[in-house]
Amino acid sequence: MTTAGAGAPGAASDDARPGSGPSRRSLLRLGAAAAGGAAAALAGRGAWDAAAAAPAPAPVAADAAGRVTVPFRGARQAGVATPQPAFVALVALDLVAGADRDAVTRLMRIWTDDVERLMAGRPGLADTEPELAQVPAALTVTVAWGPGVFTAAGIEDRRPSWLAPLPAFAVDRLEDRWCGGDLLLQVCADDQVTVAHAVRVLTKEARTFAGVRWVQRGFRNSPGTVAPGTTARNLMGQVDGTRNVDPDVEPHLVWQVDDAGPWVRDGSSVVVRRIAMDLDTWDELDRVGRENAVGRRLADGAPLTGAHEHDEPDLDARDALGFTVISDAAHIRRARTDDPTHRFLRRGYSYDDTPAAGALSDSGLLFVAFQADPVAQLVPVQERLAEADLMNLWTTPVGSAVFAVLPGAREGEVLGQALLV
Amino acid sequence: MTTAGAGAPGAASDDARPGSGPSRRSLLRLGAAAAGGAAAALAGRGAWDAAAAAPAPAPVAADAAGRVTVPFRGARQAGVATPQPAFVALVALDLVAGADRDAVTRLMRIWTDDVERLMAGRPGLADTEPELAQVPAALTVTVAWGPGVFTAAGIEDRRPSWLAPLPAFAVDRLEDRWCGGDLLLQVCADDQVTVAHAVRVLTKEARTFAGVRWVQRGFRNSPGTVAPGTTARNLMGQVDGTRNVDPDVEPHLVWQVDDAGPWVRDGSSVVVRRIAMDLDTWDELDRVGRENAVGRRLADGAPLTGAHEHDEPDLDARDALGFTVISDAAHIRRARTDDPTHRFLRRGYSYDDTPAAGALSDSGLLFVAFQADPVAQLVPVQERLAEADLMNLWTTPVGSAVFAVLPGAREGEVLGQALLV
Ligand code: HEM
Ligand code: HEM
Repeated sequence: MTTAGAGAPGAASDDARPGSGPSRRSLLRLGAAAAGGAAAALAGRGAWDAAAAAPAPAPVAADAAGRVTVPFRGARQAGVATPQPAFVALVALDLVAGADRDAVTRLMRIWTDDVERLMAGRPGLADTEPELAQVPAALTVTVAWGPGVFTAAGIEDRRPSWLAPLPAFAVDRLEDRWCGGDLLLQVCADDQVTVAHAVRVLTKEARTFAGVRWVQRGFRNSPGTVAPGTTARNLMGQVDGTRNVDPDVEPHLVWQVDDAGPWVRDGSSVVVRRIAMDLDTWDELDRVGRENAVGRRLADGAPLTGAHEHDEPDLDARDALGFTVISDAAHIRRARTDDPTHRFLRRGYSYDDTPAAGALSDSGLLFVAFQADPVAQLVPVQERLAEADLMNLWTTPVGSAVFAVLPGAREGEVLGQALLV
Repeated sequence: MTTAGAGAPGAASDDARPGSGPSRRSLLRLGAAAAGGAAAALAGRGAWDAAAAAPAPAPVAADAAGRVTVPFRGARQAGVATPQPAFVALVALDLVAGADRDAVTRLMRIWTDDVERLMAGRPGLADTEPELAQVPAALTVTVAWGPGVFTAAGIEDRRPSWLAPLPAFAVDRLEDRWCGGDLLLQVCADDQVTVAHAVRVLTKEARTFAGVRWVQRGFRNSPGTVAPGTTARNLMGQVDGTRNVDPDVEPHLVWQVDDAGPWVRDGSSVVVRRIAMDLDTWDELDRVGRENAVGRRLADGAPLTGAHEHDEPDLDARDALGFTVISDAAHIRRARTDDPTHRFLRRGYSYDDTPAAGALSDSGLLFVAFQADPVAQLVPVQERLAEADLMNLWTTPVGSAVFAVLPGAREGEVLGQALLV
């Protein structure tokens, strides 16, 4: 994936896909009523109802990259197949005690309405800083449910079988503060002010129903600093993202594409793993060791058996002494299997937080993966990596969470409505 | 100030200023020897000495905003008069126990050399991720000393009289973890990967001499999202930065411009205050209340007595009832005095960190101010604000630190060399 430059998110709208709407949707027509319902759900919030009626703020001089909007309405949510903008905030929330189906429904109405507004560059309905909404900068908000929503809403029968914490892996050193959650908001944009504002609006509107459990912020190169098409580097200096699933070519890997699966059509799943990089010990390794750990060259990301980044690695190639050129425990060898279903869309970000006392840095990768079924597609790969992967020497998973990505909301629909009836 | 777009940092080089070199500099000619000295200081670091000699990495496809470089060499350091890029990391370090003048000198040699390289888009001398240096993105690193350096180096006689913690203000709720420090690195760039890399290189190279005390990261709009010339907004939604000192027009407010002052010619001072915004109580205030708190309109930043952002506020104007239009406790009234020396260059950033348990957000302003003399110029204003400023109801200083900004390093010079002889 490349950093999304101006105009890049064109691929985001799946509106045009024929027949991709979940059939359950026909069971209920919240339809147009729901759009009005959002206003109703927001009524009685006092002082700031006035904000919506306040005179429109003077247009800010948003420049090209600031004006980019990604369509919200569609069979599938944005922020999955959408090219990656520079920044993410992953926000996990927990439902308040006693929250029931009605509470979840009301929260989804509020979020549907506010996400649509914010993604279009308009203030949220009760936005207290409406001017900060004027730079959408390719904003996407993707809403996903953890197991807790299904329990609270009494719809355990609709919970996909795969929706549970990943199994424990030998490499894990998980910390509670980066795990789990009843709900996830993935907020991406090319501007951090935009991300901060959207997170504030959406968590504030949620507060009667759900409180923030954790926030993880990540970044990639800024818009305009790296040419479109360039694969980004992570904080270990590696070209990261060369080989990935293209959701347009193999949509069934990313989305549930029919009604037969364990989840709903046009839904997906997201796995969020916080993986710490031990840059101090990584520093002690020379370039040869580093390149062997991944199986690719640092300079350009080419496989050790090839000349260019996108050359196919030759996993059978051997050197003069008979050793495999790409080590048996190299990350790219372990991360592949012959099974073409063991694949997923990686959409990660770097993080760089305040170091603990005495430490130099607290850096790593916010590993974010989308797939139709995480147990079938991702767990086998994570197991292979946990068994043997040279990269394990310098990386440690410290957080893990799985969420069910809702299908998109088409015109007049509310996110999750087909599940809540 | 505006967000620096591509090519903006032209104002950074003060090389051309005649006769602005500190006279003390003539006391010693570390000169060209120092440049070689940096290599000597780095010798014996083993494995990674090889990095400098490694084949140059393939050029990354840095785009316009990524290729921008700000000159390092000059009478004054960059990152002060330089237009503000989108991101900052403020890194305070403490010298290790027993560090002496020799240690400080060696650290300054290493930093001079590495800062020059990184700002030019070249890897640090012992850079373990040389590829991450290829996107300078208007990187500036500004080096400043806290009181501890003068003590450790045994040069108390050269310590400017103003270099001490600011006096306690009634509004302060300072937390140790955001205060003080022996050294400061202000690392600014238009790309967060660039900032993360530069911070890592410079803190790593320092580690024999100094450890990280705190890191504070801030942001403004990304390059290309807001038109050049637009004044940025803070997370309260206010246009922030309308009225500021122009260092080209009034350099004496920002720099010590002669040899007569308490510090060195072409040096400056930086005050870093971490100011938390209580966005939850701010939310309860309506737009009229918000505009009165500052004395300017939210929509466009115009004074309440004017029509456009840059109109001069009329502090004497009264409404029909005889009340001043701009409240007696409005931020912009309290932040000004009739004394033209009570002014400084504000160069702040927003922060938005992981909220504490149960909270919605941990947001605020990294208030960063440069001035020739903080006690003479900034303290009187901060005192007036602490006495009465409506904004105090929603903002709380939680961190504070003062550092002496070194003069620049001209060709062949080492940062701080004139002070260390
Ligand atoms: C901090 C942790 C990690 C780092 C630094 C990292 C880095 C990399 C790098 C540099 C590549 C090669 C370039 C590319 O094709 O993108 C790669 C490939 C890949 N990684 Fe990771 N990775 C990490 C964790 C993971 C995890 C946890 C998984 C899965 C559970 C994973 C799955 C993959 C896959 C599937 C590929 C592509 C393999 C191929 O088809 O050639 N990685 N990773
Ligand atoms: C979170 C805390 C603060 C916020 C949100 C804030 C916000 C603002 C805003 C919105 C303006 C008007 C626009 C402009 O001229 O830039 C302003 C002006 C100003 N502020 Fe602040 N400010 C804060 C703290 C401070 C502090 C601590 C100081 C100094 C110690 C300060 C000094 C000034 C000055 C000198 C002006 C320009 C006044 C004029 O000449 O009109 N501010 N501030």
